[in-house]
Amino acid sequence: MTWDYQQAAQFLHDRDGFLLLTHRRPDGDTIGCAIALCLALRKLGKTAYVLPNPDATSLFAPYWGEVLAPADFQPDTVVSTDIASEGLFPVNAETYKGRVDLCLDHHPSNTGFARYNCVEADKAACGELIYRIVTVWFPVDAHIALPLYVAISTDTGCFVYSNTTPHTHRVAAALMETGIDYAAVNKRHFRTKSYIRLRLESRMIETMDLHDEGRTAIAAISLSDMAEFGAAEEDVEDIAAVVGQLAGVHTAVTIRELKPGECKLSVRTAADLDASRVCSLLGGGGHAAAAGCSVMGSVAEAKAAVLNAIRQVRDHG
Amino acid sequence: MTWDYQQAAQFLHDRDGFLLLTHRRPDGDTIGCAIALCLALRKLGKTAYVLPNPDATSLFAPYWGEVLAPADFQPDTVVSTDIASEGLFPVNAETYKGRVDLCLDHHPSNTGFARYNCVEADKAACGELIYRIVTVWFPVDAHIALPLYVAISTDTGCFVYSNTTPHTHRVAAALMETGIDYAAVNKRHFRTKSYIRLRLESRMIETMDLHDEGRTAIAAISLSDMAEFGAAEEDVEDIAAVVGQLAGVHTAVTIRELKPGECKLSVRTAADLDASRVCSLLGGGGHAAAAGCSVMGSVAEAKAAVLNAIRQVRDHG
Repeated sequence: MTWDYQQAAQFLHDRDGFLLLTHRRPDGDTIGCAIALCLALRKLGKTAYVLPNPDATSLFAPYWGEVLAPADFQPDTVVSTDIASEGLFPVNAETYKGRVDLCLDHHPSNTGFARYNCVEADKAACGELIYRIVTVWFPVDAHIALPLYVAISTDTGCFVYSNTTPHTHRVAAALMETGIDYAAVNKRHFRTKSYIRLRLESRMIETMDLHDEGRTAIAAISLSDMAEFGAAEEDVEDIAAVVGQLAGVHTAVTIRELKPGECKLSVRTAADLDASRVCSLLGGGGHAAAAGCSVMGSVAEAKAAVLNAIRQVRDHG
Repeated sequence: MTWDYQQAAQFLHDRDGFLLLTHRRPDGDTIGCAIALCLALRKLGKTAYVLPNPDATSLFAPYWGEVLAPADFQPDTVVSTDIASEGLFPVNAETYKGRVDLCLDHHPSNTGFARYNCVEADKAACGELIYRIVTVWFPVDAHIALPLYVAISTDTGCFVYSNTTPHTHRVAAALMETGIDYAAVNKRHFRTKSYIRLRLESRMIETMDLHDEGRTAIAAISLSDMAEFGAAEEDVEDIAAVVGQLAGVHTAVTIRELKPGECKLSVRTAADLDASRVCSLLGGGGHAAAAGCSVMGSVAEAKAAVLNAIRQVRDHG
């Protein structure tokens, strides 16, 4: 059943005993939304908790506060924030499949897996929807505004991605007016990089191959690069963006050697080449502007395979 | 004489024959403000031009349109946008020193050099002030909104710097609603880097020295680095930000070898060390968080000199 944000607000207002779910490999939007909604429900006098997420990294550690559910908590009402499908539940939320009462989301691909589904697909961040729901009850205070600002800023790359809308900016303005330290959030998430991350990026740039008069760029991170810098998974988060920012490049490929003989490829393209067609030639898929695939082989073999696929799609459509 | 934005709007409404001045080494704010105000004045039926700026780079080329003044233009009214003092006039504006009728600015350090000065020092960008003035006359259209969005987004690093306020976001929302292609602006200014720039950044990271258990970082760009990559001045714009983003670093130094035996240093510090004291020991100066100086010597000598100065200030205050 599909609901608008006012129906969702009324439902939340009428129920109690809330458990809030976040998605696998959680980002600032899912975490910020769950924390903010939890604090708002408590302000309404409700019992509310967020289910701990085993994939959560230290990046969002400052925002959790006291919202995590104790192991023996038995919810009456289960709500998901920023989760497009049950396939994205973290492992410890498997038990709630088929049992979500209300799904709050902004993904166009949302499967409508809950009893009631409130999906605003025109919003850059799910945080914009949570803001609308909370302000049905009361003006947001700084405690609720901080995680919502984290949600909205991280899902838009700090208002730089093309998903950003006037509504995004207006909600940000209202959140900032509560007196939150948004400068600290911006510094932490958008103006800070680890030495390991910078070394990895430098290595990618230094060893990048340019083809087709600079229009095709292929960068790679090998297992030995990872070992040399002592890099962990969190150090390579969204690292495909490094090649994607290169001026004049129409096709940007980032190769990660996952284990000896197996590479994961990310392909980003401008309008003149379909990334999903390139990746489908290699057994993968995705969208026209961003797709992915795996190649069994070394980094050098993966480079050769993807370059061949790019030229095949370009020359033969 | 000090004026508010409504007095400035009335003055502009009453006069004609406008020449608009931008500052030396022009950025998006001064250029965007001058273009937007010129277009708005023309919409009021006025004759208005922007004085060509000899320092302008190709970065802002897409926005100029048809606003540049012909060489023989004789203005009745001279207006400056985003210029804090007459010392910041480009060389071809020297003749207008002491002849500016209206100064529109947002710098707290504005010297009040014009006959009438309208300075809103609480605004992140001068573009926010121009927006207020123009909307006294009429709602902004997309032609006026585009350069104003460039002004506001570039002066805030796309809403990430700590100067960003709720007003900044609200103006951005209004500008975006006119239908401008803000995604293209964001892509051009915040999500694109040249290959030369990326190579320079990588070289800085690769050759950076870390001291004091990683709290002090000293990076350098030598003349041979510049030559190796074929880099020009525009490729090193704001390059001190590269070291400044390094996690855990309290003191970030960027050294540029300007010519053999002469280096320019930029020092950025967190709250625990005064950058201006470090630089004053080397004959320079600036602010507590960001300062600069020159050192006569090689890159290696400059590194040793600044490290010595940092330790002297840290140990002896």
